[in-house]
Amino acid sequence: MKLFDLPCIAAAVDPAEAAEQIRLGFIAYSQGRVKVPPVQNFVFAPANGDCCVKSAWVEGSDSFTVKISTGFYDNPTRGLPSNDGLMLVLSALTGQPLALLQDEGWLTGLRTALAGQIVARALAPAQVEAIGIFGTGSQARLQLEHLLPVTDCRHVLVWGRHDEALHRYREFAEGLGLRVTTTRHAEEVARQANLIVTTTPSREALLQRQWLRPGSHITAVGADSPGKQELDAQLVAAAEVIVVDSIAQCSLYGEVSHALKAGLIERSRLLELGQLLAGEGQGRRDDRQITLADLTGVAVQDAQIARYAVQACSRV
Amino acid sequence: MKLFDLPCIAAAVDPAEAAEQIRLGFIAYSQGRVKVPPVQNFVFAPANGDCCVKSAWVEGSDSFTVKISTGFYDNPTRGLPSNDGLMLVLSALTGQPLALLQDEGWLTGLRTALAGQIVARALAPAQVEAIGIFGTGSQARLQLEHLLPVTDCRHVLVWGRHDEALHRYREFAEGLGLRVTTTRHAEEVARQANLIVTTTPSREALLQRQWLRPGSHITAVGADSPGKQELDAQLVAAAEVIVVDSIAQCSLYGEVSHALKAGLIERSRLLELGQLLAGEGQGRRDDRQITLADLTGVAVQDAQIARYAVQACSRV
Repeated sequence: MKLFDLPCIAAAVDPAEAAEQIRLGFIAYSQGRVKVPPVQNFVFAPANGDCCVKSAWVEGSDSFTVKISTGFYDNPTRGLPSNDGLMLVLSALTGQPLALLQDEGWLTGLRTALAGQIVARALAPAQVEAIGIFGTGSQARLQLEHLLPVTDCRHVLVWGRHDEALHRYREFAEGLGLRVTTTRHAEEVARQANLIVTTTPSREALLQRQWLRPGSHITAVGADSPGKQELDAQLVAAAEVIVVDSIAQCSLYGEVSHALKAGLIERSRLLELGQLLAGEGQGRRDDRQITLADLTGVAVQDAQIARYAVQACSRV
Repeated sequence: MKLFDLPCIAAAVDPAEAAEQIRLGFIAYSQGRVKVPPVQNFVFAPANGDCCVKSAWVEGSDSFTVKISTGFYDNPTRGLPSNDGLMLVLSALTGQPLALLQDEGWLTGLRTALAGQIVARALAPAQVEAIGIFGTGSQARLQLEHLLPVTDCRHVLVWGRHDEALHRYREFAEGLGLRVTTTRHAEEVARQANLIVTTTPSREALLQRQWLRPGSHITAVGADSPGKQELDAQLVAAAEVIVVDSIAQCSLYGEVSHALKAGLIERSRLLELGQLLAGEGQGRRDDRQITLADLTGVAVQDAQIARYAVQACSRV
């Protein structure tokens, strides 16, 4: 079994190549060609932590992946990052472990951001007035970074709860060459930005329908487990295109689940990202439509980026 | 993260110490103190292989375990073992990966055999006339090896389908100092042995009720997934004590599931091993009773042996 650590992985992985593999993975998933057993979840209440184990095999592939990711939210007080994790790639031909990617959660962050990029390529309005980011954490940074290849817009509005975090985000985004507006008022972001990504662990709606500009696209990635919510359910219902990474998973949690439970939308309105990417569903038709993507994270993203990362690291 | 390979693990692990940890694990499991998310199963039909991912956390423990085990049944034709696997131990305090045990499935084999030993200590008749083993594979060897500390009996009858495999098993068992009778007739084993372990991947009953001696104990470990069966359902129903490692799991598959589905027994007759070990249920009362243990393998065994193995390897 080969072992690859984070410095090696981060040096070898090309985001554009990884994005292409993830795109193909979404298509395979929506075509029913990916085996995805139920996610294993742990909650470690005494330590304010959780863990999920996500596994997937793309049928016909010669490998499969088991990913373990952890979030321990008091870690920063000990000088440790909140998130950690690793991916294991095993042979689907012999069962032998092929590689351990000790990526410390880096690949999970990247595959989540690249899903946002893939969605933006498909659904962003032709003219991006400003990029809006909700949240100031690592995923908020990654999403912005990986939107830049998709748009010429270089103005970002960032919403956060804490001035210090907003200040640090400003430094980061200015380092990418952007003009940056920070704010603690969600409405300000929605009134100016028309390509919006929400990345917070919020448990109540941050973003309201009536604030949105016509033609805005919103990608929501924060609500990755039950109880989380970033968008008002009325906003979800008002979107003219609703794309989800997994109909099965987004019916259980994520933004769409709240609107389904409230009876505001029918399940038949949901379009899976893989279908959209395969040209099997109607995406944005004009620059007045509100479009929405609800991304809860599916194991096929992990399987695809892990397999690619092993190849990339092995080439180095 | 520490890495331990099979030679290191096999040298460091003391079976008696491991058995004690597994015994405590069964008790914790039956007391509801173990978090066990659903098992993840893959079937790789083109390669005649499968994989399962079993994870567990004993509440209050400072670590948890994710185990991956694979079985690829055409591997021997390529000179590879059928089974492979590894265990990961992570911190339940910070989420950090602590250790990777590259045990190649060795710890899974051992924890399964030690469960058989634990059961035999609790349920074997006082006077073992002969040990009966069904199957000639690695688990058939491990079960015999780990029964020897439990009984003075040194006669084993072994059932198998192939003379060559029986011959190799004879050499193995004679090497342990036993008198060995090999046979292709299941009835011969049941007529002479009263401490019987079945370890085959059979999908039809091998062992019939009417062949058994009074007072026999049978431990069935082969039926670890749906569709497998080693014991006639009438035999299961006739047992006066029916112990299972997990009522929930053995209701779904394993020997007991067939008798439950046929309506031959009630679920209320099942006693969990952890209850028996905690003195909370009635085990064998006399030397005429037929007793049965149906062991499908539970993730708490993996969590306990993995945590112990990391400690043992770290001491070396």
